[in-house]
Amino acid sequence: MANTEFGYVRNFELADNIAPSNWIVVRIDGRGFSKLCKNYHFTKPNDRRALELMNAAAVEVVKSFVDIVLAYGQSDEYSFVFHENTTLFERRREKLATSVSTMFTAEYCMLWPNFMVREEGDSRFVEKGRVIGLERPWPTFDGRCVAYPKKRILRDYLKWRQADCHINNLYNTTFWNVVQNGPMSGTDAELELKGTLAKDKNEILWSRFGVNYNAEPEIYKKGSVVYRDYGECEATGGNGGWGGNKEATEGSRSQMEREKKRKQKARIVVEHVDIIQDTFWEKRPWILATKKGEEE
Amino acid sequence: MANTEFGYVRNFELADNIAPSNWIVVRIDGRGFSKLCKNYHFTKPNDRRALELMNAAAVEVVKSFVDIVLAYGQSDEYSFVFHENTTLFERRREKLATSVSTMFTAEYCMLWPNFMVREEGDSRFVEKGRVIGLERPWPTFDGRCVAYPKKRILRDYLKWRQADCHINNLYNTTFWNVVQNGPMSGTDAELELKGTLAKDKNEILWSRFGVNYNAEPEIYKKGSVVYRDYGECEATGGNGGWGGNKEATEGSRSQMEREKKRKQKARIVVEHVDIIQDTFWEKRPWILATKKGEEE
Amino acid sequence: MANTEFGYVRNFELADNIAPSNWIVVRIDGRGFSKLCKNYHFTKPNDRRALELMNAAAVEVVKSFVDIVLAYGQSDEYSFVFHENTTLFERRREKLATSVSTMFTAEYCMLWPNFMVREEGDSRFVEKGRVIGLERPWPTFDGRCVAYPKKRILRDYLKWRQADCHINNLYNTTFWNVVQNGPMSGTDAELELKGTLAKDKNEILWSRFGVNYNAEPEIYKKGSVVYRDYGECEATGGNGGWGGNKEATEGSRSQMEREKKRKQKARIVVEHVDIIQDTFWEKRPWILATKKGEEE
Amino acid sequence: MANTEFGYVRNFELADNIAPSNWIVVRIDGRGFSKLCKNYHFTKPNDRRALELMNAAAVEVVKSFVDIVLAYGQSDEYSFVFHENTTLFERRREKLATSVSTMFTAEYCMLWPNFMVREEGDSRFVEKGRVIGLERPWPTFDGRCVAYPKKRILRDYLKWRQADCHINNLYNTTFWNVVQNGPMSGTDAELELKGTLAKDKNEILWSRFGVNYNAEPEIYKKGSVVYRDYGECEATGGNGGWGGNKEATEGSRSQMEREKKRKQKARIVVEHVDIIQDTFWEKRPWILATKKGEEE
Repeated sequence: MANTEFGYVRNFELADNIAPSNWIVVRIDGRGFSKLCKNYHFTKPNDRRALELMNAAAVEVVKSFVDIVLAYGQSDEYSFVFHENTTLFERRREKLATSVSTMFTAEYCMLWPNFMVREEGDSRFVEKGRVIGLERPWPTFDGRCVAYPKKRILRDYLKWRQADCHINNLYNTTFWNVVQNGPMSGTDAELELKGTLAKDKNEILWSRFGVNYNAEPEIYKKGSVVYRDYGECEATGGNGGWGGNKEATEGSRSQMEREKKRKQKARIVVEHVDIIQDTFWEKRPWILATKKGEEE
Repeated sequence: MANTEFGYVRNFELADNIAPSNWIVVRIDGRGFSKLCKNYHFTKPNDRRALELMNAAAVEVVKSFVDIVLAYGQSDEYSFVFHENTTLFERRREKLATSVSTMFTAEYCMLWPNFMVREEGDSRFVEKGRVIGLERPWPTFDGRCVAYPKKRILRDYLKWRQADCHINNLYNTTFWNVVQNGPMSGTDAELELKGTLAKDKNEILWSRFGVNYNAEPEIYKKGSVVYRDYGECEATGGNGGWGGNKEATEGSRSQMEREKKRKQKARIVVEHVDIIQDTFWEKRPWILATKKGEEE
Repeated sequence: MANTEFGYVRNFELADNIAPSNWIVVRIDGRGFSKLCKNYHFTKPNDRRALELMNAAAVEVVKSFVDIVLAYGQSDEYSFVFHENTTLFERRREKLATSVSTMFTAEYCMLWPNFMVREEGDSRFVEKGRVIGLERPWPTFDGRCVAYPKKRILRDYLKWRQADCHINNLYNTTFWNVVQNGPMSGTDAELELKGTLAKDKNEILWSRFGVNYNAEPEIYKKGSVVYRDYGECEATGGNGGWGGNKEATEGSRSQMEREKKRKQKARIVVEHVDIIQDTFWEKRPWILATKKGEEE
Repeated sequence: MANTEFGYVRNFELADNIAPSNWIVVRIDGRGFSKLCKNYHFTKPNDRRALELMNAAAVEVVKSFVDIVLAYGQSDEYSFVFHENTTLFERRREKLATSVSTMFTAEYCMLWPNFMVREEGDSRFVEKGRVIGLERPWPTFDGRCVAYPKKRILRDYLKWRQADCHINNLYNTTFWNVVQNGPMSGTDAELELKGTLAKDKNEILWSRFGVNYNAEPEIYKKGSVVYRDYGECEATGGNGGWGGNKEATEGSRSQMEREKKRKQKARIVVEHVDIIQDTFWEKRPWILATKKGEEE
């Protein structure tokens, strides 16, 4: 048949599977979001509606991919953590990256009108309560997979993102206070903050603007953590239903099906809490649970 | 600073650049589209509105990435061909795949209401002319990059997709005629067609249903080709402005800027034509043009 | 300069670094060794001189690469385990694979005359004690890197190789007894053994040939384990001097130098012991030692 | 069986096949050769015996791998070019790299006594004509694969290596003349040559030492080219017997066998000629021959 003659071109599709037993993080990032923030007059330093839109999109992604054990978001980025034993899409790198990032993009675009509404007191708009119309270029997100071989390193990855959130937020909060309430030009504000430490910024906020950084909303300081909450009664024996490597092939299919349903029914929560300390993880042992004997 | 302690996790992000001097195809594919077709009562075997929606989304993608020299689409898939010398995103595989597929997804979702309108004579809907509301799961597309080292092989890839379009369309046209006008159950129709050759299907269509396959719309038989049309007066000396490998680094920046603008201004056309024969390419030499001395 | 014009070809050399924090196994395998065994009349089922030659070559490789923590060999293959935190050759896959396999090949060729000597009672040779001359094709070994993300999985890899050694050796011992002492043709022997379990083979060996498999030499049954033996007084605090990921960049260089010297001075031992059970590892905690807090 | 339990570790062996239709260069490089040159008192700037040893080893490698169409060597490196359509080892990167580099290493070590003989007039040795004994560390070579998508780029690669040979040789010839006949210290000679152009070095050689660089041996100036010489009567229709991509699977096996034998019988030559200009290639069209219609 005509098509077999050209079918050899398939041989150029090379395998890109991620090695087993690695936690897979798909991190998505807003493309050209500094411009988008300007175009839609996002509130500075944080636009709560936009963050809640990000979170709503993330919740849908987590809901849809039951092998995502946790997601962490801040600013225009979100990290989705797939369990180290996931076999989704045979762990193909591009398939995972594009499936997650297109779903996130679709959710972000479609949910936009639910969140991006003109708020009271927003002097830029005459009519409060009206949806802010989305225009081209539509918001999109690129994405990439990173494999982390150990739970400990995955947690360091998440610490890295949350520390980054804190650092940026403290800087931005100070910067925009200086600019808006200083008032000062952006360039001057930048110079002013150059080389300052965390405590210097805290001091500037408090002494000049009466702002207590610690009292700032947690969503700004900590970012957002999305996960399945099974409450107290976690009954799967502590491994979240994850079979080990060895069993992967055999696998009790009916048990896996039962587990999948349990995940689909679970309540998905969004919290703005510290994930750097151990407390969060100790209280929710199922999130990064691995099969007994594979604690690593 | 807190963050340097965890920054080592960046070392797990491995390079995935595609080797230079390869044509890069990003092929996107609808996720779960057989279900989506059912949910929204897509016309069988072809839903023209849906195909035109695909094409409209593709046009926007081509418009946005000036290094895409051609796109080819059929059914729920689209292939975007980046010039072999593109340096976009440093040719990073995941970045290319996710940027193209998220933009396509966003376009598809946002353009949906422009195309998916209830048509006259569509007995399934009471009210003609009303938009068919999109519901979750939103349409999304996975994507992957494939690198083709030679122009000839890239053309074989495109032949492969267009031959595939033809084969599927002939089968589907026959199948749905047998089912709808036979009438016959799907299973019986499948049995009936098993092992038939192209000429058998043509014969079935003609003798039983009076359908002349050759008279079917070109968009169904050939799929859709999207490219920049510079008309007759192609003034760049036949290489589409593509510098060779050697010049890539030095490169006359101003010339590249001029070239980019020219591409942005060019008219993007959608045609349903044969790209298997040489004629298409001979008449539009700029599409796969390479620098002189690099004809390969 | 002339050369800068062509220097762009370097861009085709793509990165192939192995992700950090993975144990790296370089496994080398004899190329065309079934023919080589025949050419040089290797004793069947095991040629002790040839195995000792393999071990001697492996010892030199371990001696030369201080980041190899253990090597395991059987038949014509050897696995060299690099510590998960090694930064040798920036963890480049091909560089590691070729450096280890060429050194092993050179050792094997150059050490050949020290081991491949005609033995007493070898009726095939007139003159006992003379070196068996090596001829083309010289013995060579291909090699490959595999990354194991967890200590547990690395140990499963080693179990896999040692179990393979046992299985093959039991089969070969039975097969060659049946062939040589049966006597029986190879084809008949193969048929005879088809489908037999371990206990069946043990029984055949004992009842027909008076061979007690358990009394066979350990080197045949267990293969060979090569590692640095620091004896009882392991003074580095149990992590073999391996800094963690975080410290990798800073790293106390002088401490690393000291550690390297310690390794270079250490006695390298070859043992034919069980590495499937925990005992071996518990008694030699330094072999797979990782930094405190990185037990995984 | 015991072994199936651990067999899952094979899943960590990831595919590393090189995309079809790319020319594959395996370049091997002496490890620690500056030290080796000192240890064995290699003549400076060029040791002809050592170069001939390299060439002899390369010839054996070319002889052994019939898919190598050409090899180019200079100093302690050699590049082996596999035809773009080779299917050897399924084009696996590590397998190709280690097979070539271990064979080269074995040849180098085993051929050493044939070449490294004390020469007349070599004042460093008392006894002329005696083999220079090889000692540990044995000479070894690392290796790497690079894929080149076009014939033109492959040729640029080879130009790059030959230009590099010329540049280094001119520098080294001048440097060592200045040092040995200046006489001058190495540091002073380095300073003297800093920033000089080719013509300056030619001038220094001629005016100070009466050395006409152009009269230097070709092997030093051009390096060494190894290939199969079929003489005038190349009867395979100009494609060296290389089937195209499409035929690869079907392939007339008997024709391929015939072709392989033809290659094995062909005379392998070593020449010190210009491969930068087109002449070399035009006169030996079979070397980079591709199937008709695949000129690229």
